[in-house]
Amino acid sequence: MNEQRVERVLAKMEELSFRQLLITDPASVYYLLGHYEEPIERFWGLLLKADGTRAVVSNRLFVLPEVKDAEILWYADGESGPAKLLPFLDTEEALAVDGTMRAKFLLELMQRKAAAGFTDGSEVMKQVRACKDPEEQEWMREASRINDASMERFRGLIREGVTETEIAEQMLGIYRELGADDYSFEPLVGFGGNAANGHHSPDQTVLKKGDCVLLDVGCKKKGFCSDMTRTFFFGEPDEESKRVYDTVLKAQLAAEAAIRPGVALKDIDKVARDVITEAGYGPYFTHRLGHFIGMDVHEAGDVSESSDLIAKPGMIFSIEPGIYLPGKVGVRIEDLVLVTETGVELLNHYSKELTIL
Amino acid sequence: MNEQRVERVLAKMEELSFRQLLITDPASVYYLLGHYEEPIERFWGLLLKADGTRAVVSNRLFVLPEVKDAEILWYADGESGPAKLLPFLDTEEALAVDGTMRAKFLLELMQRKAAAGFTDGSEVMKQVRACKDPEEQEWMREASRINDASMERFRGLIREGVTETEIAEQMLGIYRELGADDYSFEPLVGFGGNAANGHHSPDQTVLKKGDCVLLDVGCKKKGFCSDMTRTFFFGEPDEESKRVYDTVLKAQLAAEAAIRPGVALKDIDKVARDVITEAGYGPYFTHRLGHFIGMDVHEAGDVSESSDLIAKPGMIFSIEPGIYLPGKVGVRIEDLVLVTETGVELLNHYSKELTIL
Repeated sequence: MNEQRVERVLAKMEELSFRQLLITDPASVYYLLGHYEEPIERFWGLLLKADGTRAVVSNRLFVLPEVKDAEILWYADGESGPAKLLPFLDTEEALAVDGTMRAKFLLELMQRKAAAGFTDGSEVMKQVRACKDPEEQEWMREASRINDASMERFRGLIREGVTETEIAEQMLGIYRELGADDYSFEPLVGFGGNAANGHHSPDQTVLKKGDCVLLDVGCKKKGFCSDMTRTFFFGEPDEESKRVYDTVLKAQLAAEAAIRPGVALKDIDKVARDVITEAGYGPYFTHRLGHFIGMDVHEAGDVSESSDLIAKPGMIFSIEPGIYLPGKVGVRIEDLVLVTETGVELLNHYSKELTIL
Repeated sequence: MNEQRVERVLAKMEELSFRQLLITDPASVYYLLGHYEEPIERFWGLLLKADGTRAVVSNRLFVLPEVKDAEILWYADGESGPAKLLPFLDTEEALAVDGTMRAKFLLELMQRKAAAGFTDGSEVMKQVRACKDPEEQEWMREASRINDASMERFRGLIREGVTETEIAEQMLGIYRELGADDYSFEPLVGFGGNAANGHHSPDQTVLKKGDCVLLDVGCKKKGFCSDMTRTFFFGEPDEESKRVYDTVLKAQLAAEAAIRPGVALKDIDKVARDVITEAGYGPYFTHRLGHFIGMDVHEAGDVSESSDLIAKPGMIFSIEPGIYLPGKVGVRIEDLVLVTETGVELLNHYSKELTIL
C-alpha cells in the first residue's frame, strides 16, 4: 500500500472523527492499494480503522497482486462480501462508507448490525484525492497536452455533410495515435440544437451551415483523465449565437482569473454565473461551473453555488460555463485548471477565440 | 410511460408488499419511462406508489421528452434531488429502493426521515425485467446473431505475434460493420495465463504457440446486449489444457440440457459444477455459472449456488462455466439462453468444439 497516502487518509479520518472507514470506490482503492479492480455488481472494498486495521474484501474471481500490510478477506459468488467484514468491525463505533457504494451493501451491513451507526464518509477520500501530489499533477498535464493536440485534429474533421457519429468514431484512433490510452469518457459531439442538450449522444445529425459544433472530449493517460470543451461555428453564426459565445467566453475567462488559494469555490462559480446572468442568460446556464477530476473524470467536489470547498494548491477541476438555448444553440467552453501556491495553472491551451470554419 | 410494464411492476410490488418503490437504475427507468438518462453522480429516479403516485426526479441538465402521467420534479446542481421526493413520500410506510442506488442518496433520505424504514426493493424490477416480452426477445436474438457472426471474424484475427490489444481494437469496427450499435462491454481478450485472470484487460501480451485464446465479447443492438465466450487454442494444446477444455464443454452442454421452466437455477449451476468437481477442477471454477442479461449486460439475478430463482419462460441468462489454472490456461465457454414454454432456446450458435488454429 502507498504508506504516504494511507497516512493522509488516517489523518483526515481523525480530523473528521471517523474511526472506521469503508472505501469501495475502485479509484480510491487503487489510489491506496495500487491495484485497480472494476467489480461491477460485486463487492470490493478496503476497510481502514483508526486502530490500524486494514482489510481488503475481494471476490475470488479477482486476481490481486501480493498485498502486504493488509488482510485479504476472500468471498466466492453466492457468499456475502460485506459479511466478511463483521469480525473486523467495531459494533460500538459508527462506520463511515463511500457515498458511491451500492445501497444494497449498506442495507445489508445495517441489517447485520455491523456498526453502531452509518454515515457518509465520502468527504475523507474526496479531500485527500482533491489535492494531487506532484506525480499526479504531471500525468494530469500530460493527459491535457494530448487533449489539446487532439482537439486540433478533431477540428479538422468538421466539414459540410459530416454527421456527429462520423466525427465521434474517429476520435479514439486519433487519441491513441497521439499517445493516449483510452477515452476518459464517451465524447460528446453536438451540432446546432443538439449542443443545447447537455446529455446528447452523437447521432446521425448532419452538419449544416450556421450550426455550432460542440466537442466535449477527454482522454486517459496512465489512468489520469483530461476533459475539455470547445464550441466552433460552421459558417457565420447569427447575432444571438455570437452574443452567447462572447458571454460564455467572458464568464470562463473571468472565473479562471479569480482562482487562487483561499478563494471559496462557490465564489468562483458566482464570478461566471454573474457574467451570464447580467447578459440575460442566467436561466440557460443550467449546471455547476466545474467538477473535480483526476483518476475519475468526475471526482467528488464541485465548483458550484453550494460548494463549501476552498481552493488549495494541488486541486484540479474544470471551469466550464455554458449557455443552452433549447433547439437552437449550445455553447460551452471548458478548461482544466490546477490551483498553484500563488494562483492558477491552466492545463489546456487550445484557443478559445470564436472560430468560424 | 409503458402502461403494461408499469402494471407488472405495481402487481409485483403488491405481491412483495411494497407500498412505495424508488427506481434509480437507468435501464429500469428507461424500461418504464422510455427515456434513457445516464446520470453519473447525479440523482435520477422514478417513484412509484401503490396509491398511483408516479414522480420522476430529474436534474435540470437532463433533457426529457414530454412525460405524460408522471410528475416531473426538477432540481438544479447544488440542490438535493432526493429532497424533492419528500412531499410525495408516505412517512408512515417503508420505502423500497433500488439496490444499485448510491449509498449517499439512501443516507440522505434516512437523515431526512423520508419514510418509516428503508429496504432493498431490487427484487421488484429484477423479477419484472427477468422475463423478456416478445419484442425484447427478438432484439436479444438479433444482438446474439451479430455476436455469432462477429466471433467468426474475431477468430480470423488470431495469428502468430499478434497482441491482445491488436485484436481488441479491431472488434468495435467489425461489430458496427455487422450491424451492432456498440459494445455491450469492453471485450476481454486473454492469451495463455492471462485467460486465467477473470478480470484481465487486453494488453501488449504477444500470442505464442500453445496459448489458449479466450474471447469474452458482446455487442449492443437497439439497447439490448449480447455476451458470448469462446476459447481457442493457437497450436496444439498440452494434455492438461485439453482435459480442461473438454471438462468445461461437458459442463456447459450438461447445464444447457438441464434448462426448462420450473427448474431451480441453483440446480442448473450444480449440474455444471458437479461435472467440473468430478474432474478435479472444482476449486478452479471460481464464479457463478451465469447472470441475467437484457438492456444491462449484467442484470439482477444469477445462476449460482445461492440463487433462489426458478426458471420461467422469457428469462434470458448466460451459461458460462470456466476453469482457470493460474498463470497457465483459462477456458470459459458461454452462450446466452432463453427459457421457453417447454425448454430452452440457445441464442448463440457459434461452434464450441475444441478448435486448434
